[in-house]
Amino acid sequence: MPTPADKPARRDLANAIRFLAIDAVQAANSGHPGMPMGMADIAEVLWNDYLRHSPDNPGWFNRDRFILSNGHGSMLQYALLHLAGYDISTDDLRNFRQLESKTPGHPENFMTPGVETTTGPLGQGFANAVGMALAEKLLAQRFNRDGLEIVDHHTYVFMGDGCLMEGISHEAASLAGTWGLNKLVAFWDDNHISIDGNTDGWFTDDTPARFEAYGWNVVRAVDGHDAHEIRTAIDTALRSTDKPTLVCCRTTIGFGSPAKAGKESSHGAPLGKDEVLATREALNWPHAPFELPQSIAEAWRANERGAQREAQWNELFDRYAQAHPDLAGELTRRSRNELPAGFIEAADAYIARLQAEGPVVASRKASQMAIEAFAPLLPELIGGSADLAHSNLTLWKGSKSVATDDPNANYIYFGVREFAMTAISNGLGLHECFIPYDATFLVFSDYARNAVRMSALMGAHAIHVYTHDSIGLGEDGPTHQPIEHLASLRYIPGNDVWRPCDAVESAVCWKKAIERYNGPSCLIFSRQNLPHQARDAQQVADIERGGYVLKDAVGAPEVILIATGSEVGLAMQAAEQLGEKVRVVSMPSTDVFDRQDADYRESVLPRGVRRRVAIEAGVTGFWHKYVGLDGAVIGIDSYGASAPAEKLFPHFGFTVEKVVEAARGLA
Amino acid sequence: MPTPADKPARRDLANAIRFLAIDAVQAANSGHPGMPMGMADIAEVLWNDYLRHSPDNPGWFNRDRFILSNGHGSMLQYALLHLAGYDISTDDLRNFRQLESKTPGHPENFMTPGVETTTGPLGQGFANAVGMALAEKLLAQRFNRDGLEIVDHHTYVFMGDGCLMEGISHEAASLAGTWGLNKLVAFWDDNHISIDGNTDGWFTDDTPARFEAYGWNVVRAVDGHDAHEIRTAIDTALRSTDKPTLVCCRTTIGFGSPAKAGKESSHGAPLGKDEVLATREALNWPHAPFELPQSIAEAWRANERGAQREAQWNELFDRYAQAHPDLAGELTRRSRNELPAGFIEAADAYIARLQAEGPVVASRKASQMAIEAFAPLLPELIGGSADLAHSNLTLWKGSKSVATDDPNANYIYFGVREFAMTAISNGLGLHECFIPYDATFLVFSDYARNAVRMSALMGAHAIHVYTHDSIGLGEDGPTHQPIEHLASLRYIPGNDVWRPCDAVESAVCWKKAIERYNGPSCLIFSRQNLPHQARDAQQVADIERGGYVLKDAVGAPEVILIATGSEVGLAMQAAEQLGEKVRVVSMPSTDVFDRQDADYRESVLPRGVRRRVAIEAGVTGFWHKYVGLDGAVIGIDSYGASAPAEKLFPHFGFTVEKVVEAARGLA
Repeated sequence: MPTPADKPARRDLANAIRFLAIDAVQAANSGHPGMPMGMADIAEVLWNDYLRHSPDNPGWFNRDRFILSNGHGSMLQYALLHLAGYDISTDDLRNFRQLESKTPGHPENFMTPGVETTTGPLGQGFANAVGMALAEKLLAQRFNRDGLEIVDHHTYVFMGDGCLMEGISHEAASLAGTWGLNKLVAFWDDNHISIDGNTDGWFTDDTPARFEAYGWNVVRAVDGHDAHEIRTAIDTALRSTDKPTLVCCRTTIGFGSPAKAGKESSHGAPLGKDEVLATREALNWPHAPFELPQSIAEAWRANERGAQREAQWNELFDRYAQAHPDLAGELTRRSRNELPAGFIEAADAYIARLQAEGPVVASRKASQMAIEAFAPLLPELIGGSADLAHSNLTLWKGSKSVATDDPNANYIYFGVREFAMTAISNGLGLHECFIPYDATFLVFSDYARNAVRMSALMGAHAIHVYTHDSIGLGEDGPTHQPIEHLASLRYIPGNDVWRPCDAVESAVCWKKAIERYNGPSCLIFSRQNLPHQARDAQQVADIERGGYVLKDAVGAPEVILIATGSEVGLAMQAAEQLGEKVRVVSMPSTDVFDRQDADYRESVLPRGVRRRVAIEAGVTGFWHKYVGLDGAVIGIDSYGASAPAEKLFPHFGFTVEKVVEAARGLA
Repeated sequence: MPTPADKPARRDLANAIRFLAIDAVQAANSGHPGMPMGMADIAEVLWNDYLRHSPDNPGWFNRDRFILSNGHGSMLQYALLHLAGYDISTDDLRNFRQLESKTPGHPENFMTPGVETTTGPLGQGFANAVGMALAEKLLAQRFNRDGLEIVDHHTYVFMGDGCLMEGISHEAASLAGTWGLNKLVAFWDDNHISIDGNTDGWFTDDTPARFEAYGWNVVRAVDGHDAHEIRTAIDTALRSTDKPTLVCCRTTIGFGSPAKAGKESSHGAPLGKDEVLATREALNWPHAPFELPQSIAEAWRANERGAQREAQWNELFDRYAQAHPDLAGELTRRSRNELPAGFIEAADAYIARLQAEGPVVASRKASQMAIEAFAPLLPELIGGSADLAHSNLTLWKGSKSVATDDPNANYIYFGVREFAMTAISNGLGLHECFIPYDATFLVFSDYARNAVRMSALMGAHAIHVYTHDSIGLGEDGPTHQPIEHLASLRYIPGNDVWRPCDAVESAVCWKKAIERYNGPSCLIFSRQNLPHQARDAQQVADIERGGYVLKDAVGAPEVILIATGSEVGLAMQAAEQLGEKVRVVSMPSTDVFDRQDADYRESVLPRGVRRRVAIEAGVTGFWHKYVGLDGAVIGIDSYGASAPAEKLFPHFGFTVEKVVEAARGLA
């Protein structure tokens, strides 16, 4: 594109990014200047010539999504947001990496306007982007009508060598290829440098060939410092009708630094005062730190263009709403994170009916029943399993594969890819209009663990369904039997873990997870059948409080049995034998219970009652928080074993006798 | 290969595997018949024509390694072991998937002779195999001499579509290609079926092209039911001098079953009585369950051939030992899991010197000092970092990259591949002669979590080094700051987690991890400097017990402060203010402390003293096991934030004042 005489040169526009990054890292005395310096030219072309967004309204519905999967280059993104006119001031940039600033060390969607997802843990931003591109495809096929393409955005993602080395890049790229997500454009920052140095010694993949093997459109050997080549590459990507595109950009890390360009020394540390000066000299950038010539600032500002774009879209949407009021209503409702009118009432009615009918089923089956009951009301519910659909019981009557162009496509065959599954779910949950669920065996939550953590850190609406929740899994043996997983998932801050004891609690935890727009829930279900528990209406209501008295003592309790999931039935049987002074507490969610007010918690677990036994087929250590030093825990601190479940429970001490003995043994 | 008239046909040899698998799954009423039926012909050719092993001595040093990465097909492996003459009886097969049998649901190295590694969690067996092939390469280049190639084995691995979908397959294959592990041969069971059905909907990779992109030798389109084609493919693989080989075998899952061949219904459930009969008919197998014609049994038996092979090797080794007594001595010592004579004494002397000198360093630096002190004595120590060498401080003066043919190669540049790194370490640790360590930031242990679990389940000697252990990481922010990780790693059964408080404890934990041949250790280190603590000789000795009294009260303690790592210094300062009735317990490893006898534990934490405060920059819930309902915990149950570490500790309440206040607030 020719540059008119009165406009700054493209290189100078890019240098504005470079020096904001260089100077902010220098001010913080911490950070990663090399990547922003290397990717500045690519970012400049993409943002100034292609990106459709609205800086004054970072949440504009039809915006292009921009994801920085190599999140350590956060100053690239903050510089772009500042330059384009988002609410990121020069002072915010000066406060890079300072407590409670809008410019934390890695991009955080909950701190910074214009940041779509939190990145830094490598490869996950890329998978989030695949989720967002899938969201766009599915919304388009459900809502768009001829001449009224109200859903029409691209998802652009920057990624580095680190993202590509991570296994999740394989899982996510494979699915994006299978799904033909043609509006996904990934830019590989091919700079041959990672933290340990030149990647020759540990990264010798032929990455273009690898992505072609996934069914991607690959634009090879783009000079990432040549605006013309970058434009040509993006144009090629935008013409793709059936494949995602990888743009392979050969770049120089630390571009412009005389001493550190092309070297790992520019990667993760400030350039240093002298080298900053030398770089200013080399790039002919005489301006003081954080100061920009007006012509450059003006050339960057995108507020007006964005507002115009938004106004045009609003007009389109008005026409759409007139032509298709129901669809427009649904889209608006979903984009506002509102449940359908009547959903809560319907869910409560379903729960009440279950309480009355008392089905005896595995809680994984109860989970499927809940999906079957709720999903027809919730077109935003989308999900699937990592190749365990018939074990996790995630399919329901209305399931339609997202690999099709069915307007109601809502089921994801993830294949055996737990980590990408979860990060893609996070992407769907962060994108407007979806409530995603994913599923695998509880033990394989390990494969996805950091993505579960990221759900919680980001406050993503995501529902992680984990079945086969204990040694009750049986014959598959210890590799497949979770032991430490319940406790470990509960310790992830902001994560709500539920382990229901019967069909009623299973339905309640699904309802709570659906309602929880600002964070993830892990729903943990049994392989084996669980007995139904009797409850009055107040008890049914109290399930939502995470823990409640399921069976009370006559008079003041002398012993309290606390149990979850499959062990609640055991506790109830033991209570029968222990007599009328025993209280049984069902505790489907310690996370939710811990958030209740002190009075409620005291009413369930009175401080004075110290004879307490916790029972859960998982590690014992966790439960001392509730039974202290004087109580007992019936649990399992070793690995399980391969055998039929009915042999394993007694083998590992989960019997009525053991519970009774433990309770009687308390001082 | 022509089949003499008196020998059973190859297909019948393979059918022996098929029916042992079919009948064992049927007897257990649980298991996966489809894969053994599909891969039987490949396994038959590999085991009868190529595999160099010694069934009477499963641990023969120079055996080929055989890994079943698609471990759900465990009956394939048990059938092979039984047929070849390992100590797996027909009764063992009849007891498939029963409690404490030698034939658990998935192959378990600690239950079954001839099983090299525990598999089932998909993709990890493949990565273990990469570790074993690397072990062979490194031992060969250190020990072999002209005409005395005492280290010379292949590593064969079977893998399914599931393994290939998992991200870890990308990480492990990429490294195997970079390292040119030409003696690694992987067989892909390309059957187009995974649990959810035909893989067309979720697995459309061009896998051969993908592996070529990793620098592998790929043999395409092998008919996995044609012995001749299989032989040709293996011959091709064995000729490779510089690349690992992927043999792509087109197979039919459930081969031979009239109704279920080629269908997912054969994957994970018994065929059913009628279908078993129909399959007997179809494959012309009139024999009763678990019965084999003598000709077939004899054709399979490999004991004699194995013993001969072993005898030849023993002779070779004798010649080697005469020519190179020192090398032979080292190899023998290492293969017996013996530390060098004098190692313990040297380690103790180093520790005593540190205690006397009292360096004030970050514990990650102390870790590097320990490596520097111990590694020159330990040629078996091998390790590296997932692209964080200069942050994890895993390099030492003697580090030499394994990507070279240096006889002392001992350092692994893993790239950003935490999961494969850890599973490769497991493979190295399971292979004789290595003590592996791997490293990343503590928060990214998440990426490797199931491999850490597998280390512990298998009892693999592995040392997982995790640095940047808390909010003390600082500016990188909450994506990089571990909160729940210490507690979560401790809950993995059999895993020893250490979080030392100074250079002395850091050296002790390295020593303990090196000594621990039957399980993994996680060594958790700080980014920031930690003060040195004074100790007498008994206290130094007691560090090995996991927890000990670092500073005692005058007389009976009224308050006990328990702390780990960077919070021990805080506890010591608080104790100064709280007066002489306070005891400080340093607890570098709760796992090890919990294994001490009751008297010792009581001597450190007397049951009667209930005024206890635990202090650790991680989740609080964990510590109630030690402080009960009446104690206090100073910890962090939210995510951290991006800021300099010295701002974060007070921000999140880690101050002397808070500890003092908590202690004084106890009833």
